[in-house]
Amino acid sequence: MAVYTQLAAEELAALIGHFDVGELVSAKGIAEGVSNSNWLVETTGADGTGARFILTMYEFRIEVEDLPFFLSLLDHLAAKGCPVPRTIHDRNGALYRMIDGKAVALIEFLPGVSVSHPTPGQAKAVGRALAQVHLTGADFEGFRPNGMDLFESRRLATACGHDGMLRIDPALADLVERELPGLEARWPTDLPRSVIHADLFPDNVLMLGESVTGLIDFYFACTDITAYDVAVTHAAWCFDHEGQNFNPAISAALLEGYESLRPLSTEERAALPVLARGAALRFTLSRAYDWLNTPADALVMRKSPMAFARRLAFYADPANSGIFA
Amino acid sequence: MAVYTQLAAEELAALIGHFDVGELVSAKGIAEGVSNSNWLVETTGADGTGARFILTMYEFRIEVEDLPFFLSLLDHLAAKGCPVPRTIHDRNGALYRMIDGKAVALIEFLPGVSVSHPTPGQAKAVGRALAQVHLTGADFEGFRPNGMDLFESRRLATACGHDGMLRIDPALADLVERELPGLEARWPTDLPRSVIHADLFPDNVLMLGESVTGLIDFYFACTDITAYDVAVTHAAWCFDHEGQNFNPAISAALLEGYESLRPLSTEERAALPVLARGAALRFTLSRAYDWLNTPADALVMRKSPMAFARRLAFYADPANSGIFA
Repeated sequence: MAVYTQLAAEELAALIGHFDVGELVSAKGIAEGVSNSNWLVETTGADGTGARFILTMYEFRIEVEDLPFFLSLLDHLAAKGCPVPRTIHDRNGALYRMIDGKAVALIEFLPGVSVSHPTPGQAKAVGRALAQVHLTGADFEGFRPNGMDLFESRRLATACGHDGMLRIDPALADLVERELPGLEARWPTDLPRSVIHADLFPDNVLMLGESVTGLIDFYFACTDITAYDVAVTHAAWCFDHEGQNFNPAISAALLEGYESLRPLSTEERAALPVLARGAALRFTLSRAYDWLNTPADALVMRKSPMAFARRLAFYADPANSGIFA
Repeated sequence: MAVYTQLAAEELAALIGHFDVGELVSAKGIAEGVSNSNWLVETTGADGTGARFILTMYEFRIEVEDLPFFLSLLDHLAAKGCPVPRTIHDRNGALYRMIDGKAVALIEFLPGVSVSHPTPGQAKAVGRALAQVHLTGADFEGFRPNGMDLFESRRLATACGHDGMLRIDPALADLVERELPGLEARWPTDLPRSVIHADLFPDNVLMLGESVTGLIDFYFACTDITAYDVAVTHAAWCFDHEGQNFNPAISAALLEGYESLRPLSTEERAALPVLARGAALRFTLSRAYDWLNTPADALVMRKSPMAFARRLAFYADPANSGIFA
């Protein structure tokens, strides 16, 4: 949550000049994104009536060669009516530009706020919007493997090490070492695949009341098991922040909203418990790795791995097997 | 440059409900301010046509008892046509509200960007805007002593200590210990006083082209020698960032712009060299103190004291005595 790069107003104005959006009126660095710097930019607009954009500079983790996938996916989904921001192409049609050796993209600004305490009505709308992404993304031609799949979880667990996990929490190493082999053995291989968001946390959803106005931050989007995205979203939305309390009403509403547009098949629904454990494990391990490898003086706030280890333990507990029934 | 506090959308919406500005549409934490957290907030507007505001939460350094001075000063200046943001009063007329034990104010959003490499035309406009503040602030009834005056510089020099200054730069201690007694002996006592901004760096000026659209961040504003504000602004604008190069064209334009509205008296002009040394010393010492006392893991970027020590040395050099002639 930081702006890593200082961009002088003069540089920004020159950059904006490469797009058909009028002239720069305002630019504020915004405290969003851990892998990129973002500015909320206002211009006079192509027609002079004013327009707003998010200017994103890709700083870490995101490979420039992946940008065409992410940015053309936004265009594909937006063109089909999904509530996602369009990419603004420059005057030459390019999806992104380079400035000081870093890639920058100009992206449509969407209204809405990210809720912290969703209501069932909001969860239902989010489920529905996720299904819309899956349905309208079905004919998206881009392909990108999931860089945060179970293989990566195994790699992260090894990188953290037994002792590293013990340092975070005495119970973490056991939990991960018990779950990982079981999930590797039982991970589904024949479920439908499509483009998925893979990171649809409340932070990445803009809402007004009970309407979804924007799904944002598609920088983990990839081609993977469609129902896995439901599991990720479930893990992200159906617990309190620290993962201590499961909220059955949010869970039911999320699934109901999703199935109102895209009913899950019997096989998909049967796989949800395993997929949810995989999703919880993925965030447990990426956070554990960051926890052990983020310098104490970093500008980025470390997120607790245990908040997702608790979700993992919840999904793994046979007493909770009924929640996806 | 950070957002220190997480405010849930639900909290923000409830807060906005206390003002007659319509409903919350968007809120982005912005990376501005070192003593406060700021959000760029959009609402439906009192009349439904949309409105934007800066929501400021006062985190450090700023005393709540000073807020009526700062916020009613904005109202006073804005009402008289100065390019400063109005304070939005809540439905009960209050200038600020408390949330989670911290004061928050809702302030008009103004367009414009902060320039990094000002042109003489821009410097002239800034000088003129500063004079406008001094003229229209003349009948402002609030009074606030300057907390960053020469007494404070003496206190900060003592707090840094000879050894602390040596740690920053071998030349710093000598420079400060030579300048401070001289300035204390020669500091003017009979020049006109008024409300002054006291911190008018390029960061605190919003511009569109060569027009000033906003003077912001009045949290050092106080009642002090009017011409001292000219000196502070001179030190802030007329050098490159590191204070290595003086820009005579910017200096001339700034003073010309100022005097186009408020000509300096003979006494004020004669005092500018001393006032400029005091201004450069003030920022040298506040930065030196912060440099020595900011933990390495702070979210805030430390600013170089030497960038202002170089300005101080420049102003103190008899070879440069002609710049204010």
